[in-house]
Amino acid sequence: MYGAGDVRVIEIPDPTIQQPTDALVRVTRACVCGSDLHPFHSMPADPEGVPMGHEFIGVVEEVGKEVTTVRRGDFVIAPFAWSCGRCEFCLAGLQTSCVNGGFWGRGDVGGGQAEAVRVPLADGTLVPVPGVDENADEARLAGLLTLSDVYGTGWHAAVRGGVTAGSTVTVIGDGAVGLLAVLSARQLGAERIVLMGRHRSRTDLGRDFGATDVVAERGAEGIEKVRELTGGGSEIVLEAVGHLPAYEQAIGIVRPGGVISRVGVPQYEEAPIGFGSVFGPNVTLTGGPAPARAYIERLLPGVLDGSVQPGRVFDQIVVLDETATGYAAMDDRTALKVLVRP
Amino acid sequence: MYGAGDVRVIEIPDPTIQQPTDALVRVTRACVCGSDLHPFHSMPADPEGVPMGHEFIGVVEEVGKEVTTVRRGDFVIAPFAWSCGRCEFCLAGLQTSCVNGGFWGRGDVGGGQAEAVRVPLADGTLVPVPGVDENADEARLAGLLTLSDVYGTGWHAAVRGGVTAGSTVTVIGDGAVGLLAVLSARQLGAERIVLMGRHRSRTDLGRDFGATDVVAERGAEGIEKVRELTGGGSEIVLEAVGHLPAYEQAIGIVRPGGVISRVGVPQYEEAPIGFGSVFGPNVTLTGGPAPARAYIERLLPGVLDGSVQPGRVFDQIVVLDETATGYAAMDDRTALKVLVRP
Repeated sequence: MYGAGDVRVIEIPDPTIQQPTDALVRVTRACVCGSDLHPFHSMPADPEGVPMGHEFIGVVEEVGKEVTTVRRGDFVIAPFAWSCGRCEFCLAGLQTSCVNGGFWGRGDVGGGQAEAVRVPLADGTLVPVPGVDENADEARLAGLLTLSDVYGTGWHAAVRGGVTAGSTVTVIGDGAVGLLAVLSARQLGAERIVLMGRHRSRTDLGRDFGATDVVAERGAEGIEKVRELTGGGSEIVLEAVGHLPAYEQAIGIVRPGGVISRVGVPQYEEAPIGFGSVFGPNVTLTGGPAPARAYIERLLPGVLDGSVQPGRVFDQIVVLDETATGYAAMDDRTALKVLVRP
Repeated sequence: MYGAGDVRVIEIPDPTIQQPTDALVRVTRACVCGSDLHPFHSMPADPEGVPMGHEFIGVVEEVGKEVTTVRRGDFVIAPFAWSCGRCEFCLAGLQTSCVNGGFWGRGDVGGGQAEAVRVPLADGTLVPVPGVDENADEARLAGLLTLSDVYGTGWHAAVRGGVTAGSTVTVIGDGAVGLLAVLSARQLGAERIVLMGRHRSRTDLGRDFGATDVVAERGAEGIEKVRELTGGGSEIVLEAVGHLPAYEQAIGIVRPGGVISRVGVPQYEEAPIGFGSVFGPNVTLTGGPAPARAYIERLLPGVLDGSVQPGRVFDQIVVLDETATGYAAMDDRTALKVLVRP
């Protein structure tokens, strides 16, 4: 990406193994994330450009000498952060805070919207999926790809929110993460799931994933509606947007003593947390970048056996050369989530 | 209080029973709270004045017809919010969000810095203490008085922070609440308790209460010191001040994936909660006004048997007529916490 609205697919030298802990992965499916739209809207022009994409699955082509858990030919899932798997935070399941790790497309590490990626700390980062190869059917590949980020992120929202059997949950946002937060809340046993969103095709998918109610209204009207549906506020609110109005919505609908779990990357730094918002009603604010890596083993079986179909969030496919088209489709909301294939 | 710095003790008619659920309590001990200092600093002049004080113990003088749990002559503790004891939030132990309740000194309900108080919803609000009367020794009365607010508030901080056996906890603030957060964390099994405060006599009491380390530095230096002591940040931070710099301190010292539990009443509404503060490291922000009522039964036995001595936070006593002196002493830090007696 070279600036707002300026996505180009260019030729660069193939990545190579640089560290004995690296692996090279040939990307077989990648995608465009809602969070990629933030720089697509506001990135200042940069003649150097930055590599994009942090969700991909693919085939290991080569590994460094110290890599032991994956080998050439393995089909792998790459979570959206790379991590060592050994530090205190990785062991605690918080790989996004890995002291040795980092994020795709920064420094000398490439992005996932590419033909191939050098994966640092391959043992800690990659999850091989035995029995699957790049020729698996498209629905299966799409499902596996969601484990890179959006499914794990929806799951993180629900886990951090404390969703359990019988919970009442409201999900703010009908993007891929919001819809998969619905699916996750359902899997964790939530009884009532209110989805706030106004794109009918998306909220219909949300209903398929387990939403019991849909609220299309926003602002004061949306708050009123949710408070009415939940008898005075939702004990758990999963915020999957990241813009300030979505946070304000969360404040408006959370029940006293309840939890707001945020996984939409905040597009603000300061926001209300004083007596009149979070403190007075003893609301807990939690969430953050999902340690997608931590959840793959837990979520993979359901994807493989088809009992959950998170891959349904993909509603458009582009080839790598047309990635810019994919950004535009997500930006103008003609696509929910765009899959990128070679 | 008639404005910043303007505390007067005046004669008003004695309160009377107004509702069949009321009780009249003759106040035997009250006190000045750190939070009373906020209006003492900044309240605009008000010729009407507002009643002050929300912490008191005393003797029931009269009860309304529907009151069943206390009777004339009972010695009682009044928590800092009055509550019905029956609504969803009371039953969940969140009496500060009681749908029928409220706070002392608002509307037609008086404050605790007084000779007597009308207590609404007496059955839900008051906790009788059998075997104690107003002639109990001063230390015992002081201990019981902390159950109105500061001990319960310190306990709330620790409970919401998730303190458990072996926890590493940092407490910000060496006021009465901070010191009792130390005591509470210790009771809940914390192994390492770092107390941030710079008043030697207070931090010494903090050590008696269980602090294993004291950090007198503030700002960047204080953050550096705590991060060093805790090997990269404290998993639990209890914020017992309420000013923005204390919150910023909390952000600086909390470990990734950790918890900031606030019980100091925030003197700000907006504060950092974006990627660079709370979201990025998956920090959980929790806390709020303590449901002191919910904790009295749990904490009372230790106070009665003397195994904990939270009343040690009182280091000055004034008679009711001299309440203004008590405010001044707390304001200029010559007193940690001032007890008010008839």
